[in-house]
Amino acid sequence: MSKIRLGVLGGGGDSLIGVLHRVASNMYDRYEIVGGVFNPNYDENIKFAKQIGVNTDRIYVDFDTLVEEELKKPANERIEVVSVLTPNFLHYPMAKKLLENGFNVICEKPLTTSFSEAKELEALQKKNNAIFAVTYTYTGYPMVRHMKHLIAEGALGEIHKVDIQYYQGWINPVVHDKEVRKKVWRLDPTKAGISSCIGDIGTHAFQMAEYLTGMEVSSLLSDLNTLYDDNPLDIDGTVLIRFGNKAKGVIRASQIATGEENNLAVAIYGRNGGFRWEQENPNFLYFLKDDEPRRVIKPGNAYVSKVAADGTKLPGGHPEGIFDAMGNIYKGVAKALRGETSFNGEYPTMNDGVRGMLFIEKVVESHKKGNVWLPMINQ
Amino acid sequence: MSKIRLGVLGGGGDSLIGVLHRVASNMYDRYEIVGGVFNPNYDENIKFAKQIGVNTDRIYVDFDTLVEEELKKPANERIEVVSVLTPNFLHYPMAKKLLENGFNVICEKPLTTSFSEAKELEALQKKNNAIFAVTYTYTGYPMVRHMKHLIAEGALGEIHKVDIQYYQGWINPVVHDKEVRKKVWRLDPTKAGISSCIGDIGTHAFQMAEYLTGMEVSSLLSDLNTLYDDNPLDIDGTVLIRFGNKAKGVIRASQIATGEENNLAVAIYGRNGGFRWEQENPNFLYFLKDDEPRRVIKPGNAYVSKVAADGTKLPGGHPEGIFDAMGNIYKGVAKALRGETSFNGEYPTMNDGVRGMLFIEKVVESHKKGNVWLPMINQ
Amino acid sequence: MSKIRLGVLGGGGDSLIGVLHRVASNMYDRYEIVGGVFNPNYDENIKFAKQIGVNTDRIYVDFDTLVEEELKKPANERIEVVSVLTPNFLHYPMAKKLLENGFNVICEKPLTTSFSEAKELEALQKKNNAIFAVTYTYTGYPMVRHMKHLIAEGALGEIHKVDIQYYQGWINPVVHDKEVRKKVWRLDPTKAGISSCIGDIGTHAFQMAEYLTGMEVSSLLSDLNTLYDDNPLDIDGTVLIRFGNKAKGVIRASQIATGEENNLAVAIYGRNGGFRWEQENPNFLYFLKDDEPRRVIKPGNAYVSKVAADGTKLPGGHPEGIFDAMGNIYKGVAKALRGETSFNGEYPTMNDGVRGMLFIEKVVESHKKGNVWLPMINQ
Amino acid sequence: MSKIRLGVLGGGGDSLIGVLHRVASNMYDRYEIVGGVFNPNYDENIKFAKQIGVNTDRIYVDFDTLVEEELKKPANERIEVVSVLTPNFLHYPMAKKLLENGFNVICEKPLTTSFSEAKELEALQKKNNAIFAVTYTYTGYPMVRHMKHLIAEGALGEIHKVDIQYYQGWINPVVHDKEVRKKVWRLDPTKAGISSCIGDIGTHAFQMAEYLTGMEVSSLLSDLNTLYDDNPLDIDGTVLIRFGNKAKGVIRASQIATGEENNLAVAIYGRNGGFRWEQENPNFLYFLKDDEPRRVIKPGNAYVSKVAADGTKLPGGHPEGIFDAMGNIYKGVAKALRGETSFNGEYPTMNDGVRGMLFIEKVVESHKKGNVWLPMINQ
Repeated sequence: MSKIRLGVLGGGGDSLIGVLHRVASNMYDRYEIVGGVFNPNYDENIKFAKQIGVNTDRIYVDFDTLVEEELKKPANERIEVVSVLTPNFLHYPMAKKLLENGFNVICEKPLTTSFSEAKELEALQKKNNAIFAVTYTYTGYPMVRHMKHLIAEGALGEIHKVDIQYYQGWINPVVHDKEVRKKVWRLDPTKAGISSCIGDIGTHAFQMAEYLTGMEVSSLLSDLNTLYDDNPLDIDGTVLIRFGNKAKGVIRASQIATGEENNLAVAIYGRNGGFRWEQENPNFLYFLKDDEPRRVIKPGNAYVSKVAADGTKLPGGHPEGIFDAMGNIYKGVAKALRGETSFNGEYPTMNDGVRGMLFIEKVVESHKKGNVWLPMINQ
Repeated sequence: MSKIRLGVLGGGGDSLIGVLHRVASNMYDRYEIVGGVFNPNYDENIKFAKQIGVNTDRIYVDFDTLVEEELKKPANERIEVVSVLTPNFLHYPMAKKLLENGFNVICEKPLTTSFSEAKELEALQKKNNAIFAVTYTYTGYPMVRHMKHLIAEGALGEIHKVDIQYYQGWINPVVHDKEVRKKVWRLDPTKAGISSCIGDIGTHAFQMAEYLTGMEVSSLLSDLNTLYDDNPLDIDGTVLIRFGNKAKGVIRASQIATGEENNLAVAIYGRNGGFRWEQENPNFLYFLKDDEPRRVIKPGNAYVSKVAADGTKLPGGHPEGIFDAMGNIYKGVAKALRGETSFNGEYPTMNDGVRGMLFIEKVVESHKKGNVWLPMINQ
Repeated sequence: MSKIRLGVLGGGGDSLIGVLHRVASNMYDRYEIVGGVFNPNYDENIKFAKQIGVNTDRIYVDFDTLVEEELKKPANERIEVVSVLTPNFLHYPMAKKLLENGFNVICEKPLTTSFSEAKELEALQKKNNAIFAVTYTYTGYPMVRHMKHLIAEGALGEIHKVDIQYYQGWINPVVHDKEVRKKVWRLDPTKAGISSCIGDIGTHAFQMAEYLTGMEVSSLLSDLNTLYDDNPLDIDGTVLIRFGNKAKGVIRASQIATGEENNLAVAIYGRNGGFRWEQENPNFLYFLKDDEPRRVIKPGNAYVSKVAADGTKLPGGHPEGIFDAMGNIYKGVAKALRGETSFNGEYPTMNDGVRGMLFIEKVVESHKKGNVWLPMINQ
Repeated sequence: MSKIRLGVLGGGGDSLIGVLHRVASNMYDRYEIVGGVFNPNYDENIKFAKQIGVNTDRIYVDFDTLVEEELKKPANERIEVVSVLTPNFLHYPMAKKLLENGFNVICEKPLTTSFSEAKELEALQKKNNAIFAVTYTYTGYPMVRHMKHLIAEGALGEIHKVDIQYYQGWINPVVHDKEVRKKVWRLDPTKAGISSCIGDIGTHAFQMAEYLTGMEVSSLLSDLNTLYDDNPLDIDGTVLIRFGNKAKGVIRASQIATGEENNLAVAIYGRNGGFRWEQENPNFLYFLKDDEPRRVIKPGNAYVSKVAADGTKLPGGHPEGIFDAMGNIYKGVAKALRGETSFNGEYPTMNDGVRGMLFIEKVVESHKKGNVWLPMINQ
């Protein structure tokens, strides 16, 4: 079994996302980084390749050269899948060209900067039947996967209520001073697009809602907060959601929840039970029932599903973390690339990326129109 | 210092609310139950009085007799304050007559069955300058009071986000069967009024929001869920709220959050920090700051405010609970009755009751009108 | 059903233990405080009686007068049970005289100041067949009772390991300065007896071990810490314990666990499962099994035993606390006094008090003899 | 900066420890696995090397060949450090030969099977001035390192009490049946040495005690439990410990704490404060003070020490886990190998290994001699 030939775009230097993907790709010994463009500066690019021990033969001067040169190689030597870790606005053109040239892609979220771009990529991917993952990292946690699995199995029965929270506080220290605020790329529409909070973390909450329940949000109504009139982007928002059935829900996201670090929290309730989970304590999954003691489900135990076990490397009580979550997504992509059996949801797909872009646009539109209901239809 | 002469309406037999108020009134040795009408059946009434050791001389055959007979007594023997623990629809007529006849009142929530009734009571109370408490019990917890105190002192700076949750699951087992559902008084509009979930617990969340922040909700937009078309009352709902300033928020309430017991949870964030608190762990208050370790504040410690200390009877680590919370409200009323110095918010007032009724009506109206913004103005 | 005529010794003025017992005795409407000696100063005594609303007719000038005068009354008017809340050294003479004169007793812990005194009281109690409770308060928590019940039913199977911790930090601020230390009664052997930490809180841990498991500690070995050579009393200690079977265990107590408030924590493991419980979060009981998710058991739910339900007044999620725990002990004594059916362990008995005194003496002896094993035999 | 040439002994196939070390060595891009003997079976060895993408040129038929062949290579190509992941009894002979031949070593714990072997290795290491790490993984957690750092800085002042717990339950299902028990290598003295529980996990607790406090245990007294007379090895034990000053403590370890997974828990108290930490929630460090709210310290925040920051790759709220902890140990060894500045305790050293072996021997000896005090002197 040969290793998968992985190319990487971006993620050089001190990039945190670079570390996360690199360690993740190594976790199950299934990938080898064989080339890429880590940095727009070629010298830095080469230097970084040496630093992380990647052969510099296939470190290219730029993205276009990478595609061109790799296509010259025989298929069994060519980069099989490319991780796109570049700034958000580059996801679309890079993914597009990669798909057009037959590469598989692992793309950071958000997929693109607009829904229409996302739809275009989706069409291309379907046409080429490429493997395409969008790295909503949190779905890689074993307890998230176990939750999805149990919900699909009917553990909650018909779902009635979906409440997903994603609270951070990091923008609070930088948002109140007008001059400071201008220098934060997340708050600059030319760099961050039409949304800050919803675009960055609200989408995670939304994707988690659909990923876990297997249901699609059918309509939404949002209320956003920019705090200051001359701050163009939302830094806080609440989104009412409805599914096509009885179920309703709410997505709450904030970057001004002062003192919160990365508080993604899930609460889903159905006729037969409920689940609660928090990302900052990812190895504790709470299962609630009407009249039974609540259960604390933890990975590494014999009682968890194969789905969860597949993403856990050590016995119970040896806490794995977010690197391991991303590692599981890479593992899922590896299985797909090698045609191995996998389970539903082993990696977040193009569809997650497309839905995420639609969500951002509809949330912003709903708010602008005066907090009205809008349908969430993929077209 | 003589004890306060307390009369009680309702709360006889196995009534849970009766136990709560009785124990609470005893907690600081400031009240003596001298009479009342515990039960509409006179024999039961007398039997119960004997059971709890109340002299039967002033156990009356009905409410009207109580008022009539007590008024015959000299002021220094007359019942000073009456606890109204009867079914919701009786709160208004009883409180009205009590106020008209110069009694002070401790009334269970909801204050009335409509906002207009509540306004009427408010006018009467102002006219008579009566002491009137509405027992939103959770405000009696020392950590809730400490939170209010610290917020008033500026611990959070300008408030940006208010998120209050009140999740229960108890209606789930009884809501799905049409015949069972019919027998649940909470789901019967003739008994429960226009709302189940918002009316019973959403109001607690709303009152907590205003109580803690000292700000008034200026407008709201709600989305309710009845699950079944022929279920006339909401059993779940989310309410977007706005204050008159930058702050926005959300109130989330559910009676179908399967497996939840009584999960009232507070999260308030401001420019200088945040607070988190959960009713099921009432002695742990979390104080968050931008870049400091979060602090776990607990009652009974020298570092807490006088406001919190006043409501704590034992040293740190000796957990007091909900009886003690209600006891603190009774203590607050006692101070008011005796003209003692107290702090802001020592007991929930007529205004809390009135605002609560307005909230219920506006939430239901917003939902019915298609989830639109409505102002929250007390008139 | 008439109320039980309760007399109270001590607990006047600002006494915390006085509040605790008074509220507890009121909780289930079964007692009426009819007399007592709250304070050695008669004027204070009378003043306090008025303050708490007790008729002063039976407020006596001193303890001997109380006994003398009460004996003159007919049995159906006489004080039935006396709560002894006086300083520790008075427990023995008062309890002795009360037992000799046919009174039932509720005595604060420690029962006496020596094992031999305790044995004497035990003999008297057996002779007179009196009801005698020793208020190890923590056994009144519903989850503690439920744990005892489940263990007795075999939920853990054969017990292998018992680990009880009681950590406080309050002596840390007063122990390091020699002059300050001298003024702390707990550290003065003439007032506190032969032990500080073990005598005050170690006994609670020990009693909890025997109460929960239904097994007796058969031998122990201790290591104590006084920190300073001229501090005569232990302020920290660890005690190895053995039961008469396979089970071993450890009791850990400290008053210099800086920053700890009242951290009594239970861990008991058997062949079929384990329990964990912490006093500062008394409504959460954790049940562990070999390969099942751990369960979080909470009071007020239909799934808990009658034993637990009997000590819970409100539905799940309405946290009751330490006043309620003591209230349950009073309830247990009330049942015993009225000959009602009760369950095993409804109140801590004379035997708990006697064993507690033996424990203190043996722990101190073991340490003094060089940390050697000593048998724990009641004679 | 070239990668460190790492050799690996053991850890092939499905070995969990193999995955842990492999991922850890990759985490900071500082190592390259260039050779080793993963498996005693050569075919498996080669197969595994291919599977994990290691060039098979330096995959050797056995350990002796590895040493022999590597020594033939020029120093700048030779394996620089060897990870010893073989069964415990092979640690000593392999580490010995490696040291004798100038290799640096990363050795799994326990270092050897006896204290005398450990002393021998220590002498060799000192003589050769080799880098030698013993992988007590838990010291790699950022919050453990931060705790050590703060203690060294005086955050707790003089330490009074050290209480370390390591509870697991995994032996419970296999210990009660005599035939099953025989097949468990941990319970077989010929494979596991003189101790099961203390040897495997008690040493972790002991090492944590010395690592965190910077103090040496000067004497100990133990009580062990085998549950069955014909079970030769301890599966539970409590160890009283003393340091050379006022401080006392206790180490508690169990493999029959039914339902516990990997519950290593630290409690250290000093004159100025206390720390509490649990391995299963490794990103939450609790700092206690006499009269201040306790603080919850978390990694990735600006307020943590450089020591903690150095071992954290992502911002606050992105939980890293045990792989990251081991990665930090590898990072520490890398710094040492490259002569970079590091902090005290960046990797557990030979001394930790030696002390660990002494601890095991003294604990078993103390128990056998009747639970007596024994000095803990390294000779």
